[in-house]
Amino acid sequence: MNNYITLSDIENLQELIDEALQLKNKNTAGVVGKGKTLGMLFFNPSLRTRLSTEKAAKLLGMEVMVMNADKDGWALEFEDGAVMDSNKAEHIKEAAAVLSQYCDIIAVRAFPDLKDKEKDEAELVLKSFQKYASVPVINLESATGHPLQALTDAITISELKTDKKPKVVLTWAPHPKALPQSVPNSFAEVMQRLNADFVIANPEGYNLNPSITKDVEVTHDQDEALKDADFVYVKNWSSYEQYGKALKTDTSWTLTGDKLKKTNNAKVMHCLPVRRNMVIADEVLDSENSVVIHQAGNRTFAAQAVLRRILEKK
Amino acid sequence: MNNYITLSDIENLQELIDEALQLKNKNTAGVVGKGKTLGMLFFNPSLRTRLSTEKAAKLLGMEVMVMNADKDGWALEFEDGAVMDSNKAEHIKEAAAVLSQYCDIIAVRAFPDLKDKEKDEAELVLKSFQKYASVPVINLESATGHPLQALTDAITISELKTDKKPKVVLTWAPHPKALPQSVPNSFAEVMQRLNADFVIANPEGYNLNPSITKDVEVTHDQDEALKDADFVYVKNWSSYEQYGKALKTDTSWTLTGDKLKKTNNAKVMHCLPVRRNMVIADEVLDSENSVVIHQAGNRTFAAQAVLRRILEKK
Amino acid sequence: MNNYITLSDIENLQELIDEALQLKNKNTAGVVGKGKTLGMLFFNPSLRTRLSTEKAAKLLGMEVMVMNADKDGWALEFEDGAVMDSNKAEHIKEAAAVLSQYCDIIAVRAFPDLKDKEKDEAELVLKSFQKYASVPVINLESATGHPLQALTDAITISELKTDKKPKVVLTWAPHPKALPQSVPNSFAEVMQRLNADFVIANPEGYNLNPSITKDVEVTHDQDEALKDADFVYVKNWSSYEQYGKALKTDTSWTLTGDKLKKTNNAKVMHCLPVRRNMVIADEVLDSENSVVIHQAGNRTFAAQAVLRRILEKK
Repeated sequence: MNNYITLSDIENLQELIDEALQLKNKNTAGVVGKGKTLGMLFFNPSLRTRLSTEKAAKLLGMEVMVMNADKDGWALEFEDGAVMDSNKAEHIKEAAAVLSQYCDIIAVRAFPDLKDKEKDEAELVLKSFQKYASVPVINLESATGHPLQALTDAITISELKTDKKPKVVLTWAPHPKALPQSVPNSFAEVMQRLNADFVIANPEGYNLNPSITKDVEVTHDQDEALKDADFVYVKNWSSYEQYGKALKTDTSWTLTGDKLKKTNNAKVMHCLPVRRNMVIADEVLDSENSVVIHQAGNRTFAAQAVLRRILEKK
Repeated sequence: MNNYITLSDIENLQELIDEALQLKNKNTAGVVGKGKTLGMLFFNPSLRTRLSTEKAAKLLGMEVMVMNADKDGWALEFEDGAVMDSNKAEHIKEAAAVLSQYCDIIAVRAFPDLKDKEKDEAELVLKSFQKYASVPVINLESATGHPLQALTDAITISELKTDKKPKVVLTWAPHPKALPQSVPNSFAEVMQRLNADFVIANPEGYNLNPSITKDVEVTHDQDEALKDADFVYVKNWSSYEQYGKALKTDTSWTLTGDKLKKTNNAKVMHCLPVRRNMVIADEVLDSENSVVIHQAGNRTFAAQAVLRRILEKK
Repeated sequence: MNNYITLSDIENLQELIDEALQLKNKNTAGVVGKGKTLGMLFFNPSLRTRLSTEKAAKLLGMEVMVMNADKDGWALEFEDGAVMDSNKAEHIKEAAAVLSQYCDIIAVRAFPDLKDKEKDEAELVLKSFQKYASVPVINLESATGHPLQALTDAITISELKTDKKPKVVLTWAPHPKALPQSVPNSFAEVMQRLNADFVIANPEGYNLNPSITKDVEVTHDQDEALKDADFVYVKNWSSYEQYGKALKTDTSWTLTGDKLKKTNNAKVMHCLPVRRNMVIADEVLDSENSVVIHQAGNRTFAAQAVLRRILEKK
């Protein structure tokens, strides 16, 4: 693996899932990362992604250096040919090239503004690092994708499924703020590569980018979608059609205990952090059906599998 | 040891002090922490506690991950059943459970608001982590206690005493701001478990929580208390009776060279940082009597002894 | 080496350069730092210096603890005898002494205010740490010098020169903000110790401190200076004469492709970050002549050589 920018950087998904589960089961400190440094660069805050990736790198023997570009006020210029006479102190060309001198892998988090669809889809920050870095780049959640989360989700479903071809439902749920589509985008992508009966349920106006969902069944009837589900992945996202807008914030789509009863005693997933009683009700999160903590635990092994692949250049 | 939340988590104090002093004297890098991760979570800033605990963990071979909850704007919900539709992005239930996936020990610092005695005494942040984490929890100073500091203080007195039963005076001193009672509370507790002639001197209105000081002699006459003292522990705290108030800021209780002369050439202690010429006068801090730097150095060994006990589950 | 405060702490410059280049070529993880801790204390932000020094320390086997004094609001009192009744929570006497308990080497960054020449030249922060710390101190860029950068620059010129005595030009260039003189000061110092034909070119009013530049040729004619140059070091600085002022911000001194043609196909250096098309034009930075990324890469080995010398006390 040369980079991990999108899920398409994974050639054989099941093989990588199996590797992650092996890492989970032995969980021994590795040596492949000895003497190597991971640089983690945050243009937006992070908790789970930072800790799990940091832990994964250290389990492989790597050193980790963290830069909070958002807090350290390190304003970068991305435009070619700019006369840098304002507040931007460094051009991405130097920034990426210099970090490549100190780090063996660079991992970058950069959220969308949710104001300009074309700009967000251009993935300027991530793509610029990929273009100007001389070392591999990992996506720690970008404007339109979160492939480390999606790999974690695929690992979790592979690990917990009891049916060869489980029914997996990705359902929209309400949230007080307008959130990116990166997590549902990457989940929709990864589900198209797993052996699953995959359905997306969301209110009208909330259809995801059709070039990502492709032939996946999309319904506006949550109850119908939940019927017989083996896994329910709950997640809020802002509208793609009315780009970046939060059109609906009432709790009629909150995953409650009553709705869960329609499923095949489904396992409930969420990438966390989760707003209790907005996105998912207490009675669901506190039940045996919730696997959200287990899922968060798998973040480490997803990151470890990706880092090891990149370090081993295979 | 399962947790280190209060001093009562130490069964045999002298044994733990001896272990810390052994660690100090050999100070060899350990292996008991190899492959283990300490997560340090700060709801309030920290310098000494962070550095000494980080150093202690690394001396034991652990990896350390630091999260500044105060700066990273990670607003947690602590209320059961809350509908999370405001600014709090994650419930303590998930936060503690997820951190337990990435860390083998979680250490938490959370100061009091000093506005509502009952609320502070409930120790909501620390107790919630203890309740919802599935790994051991260490108190890095909470609303009402600072047991790592108290253990350091006991180690320092054990190490430096020349008398089997030294006279130890905890004396209040002025400070421009209203400070928590956590350090004097824990010092008063630990002194009741050491073989010492222990006296607390503070102005009227500054008596500590009587359920903590119990039968300890409390006097409002600083000069009388200092007489023949072998150790003088100087510390400001805000009023417990008129909760959280700073009633007195004149310098009549500042520990000066003249006052020190009343003692038995006492060793002067303070947890640091110390306001010079407010809490303690220059001529005392710059004299041979001051052991505050030596005391700060012992923080590492107190933390190391506690971490090792928890890692060894004994 | 006992400290690395100024370039004069280097006794034999060429020997240290050679050591750094050896470290670069083998780049093996060291053991001399095992069990030792580097404390890095930032009163001003840092990216390159932090990462390269952190990496250097870890390559030597050291642990690294970072404190952002600027962000953590750790306001220190530096005045002797101060009554600390305001917002300054700790005196440098305790701060430096306590850090010396937790760290084997302390590295400090503290920029000038550029308002009061005498105050900046007193180097209060750096000198106070040197005075009160009981462990070696490293300068990570102070009010008037940046000796780690200068060592890097000397390493880079030694490594890349094809002529025994190359012509090296330090040329001022425009910048929208008033910057410190620390980098050009240290570069001027180190060049006086290398075998080079060294010239400084700057506009009138921008002469550096004459007690640093001494007998170095200073010209106000950039074109004349660039003629036949083998190395061109481009850097902005604020006026020393009209202390801290930015007198000139037009782009007539920007290093362009046309100006580069006057040189002997010179290698172009800059300490980074660089404002493109203000300080150096795109066509120069994107050409084969630019060695700025290579130069940034050498920061690690300069830091490693200095740290190793200090650790080995030789």
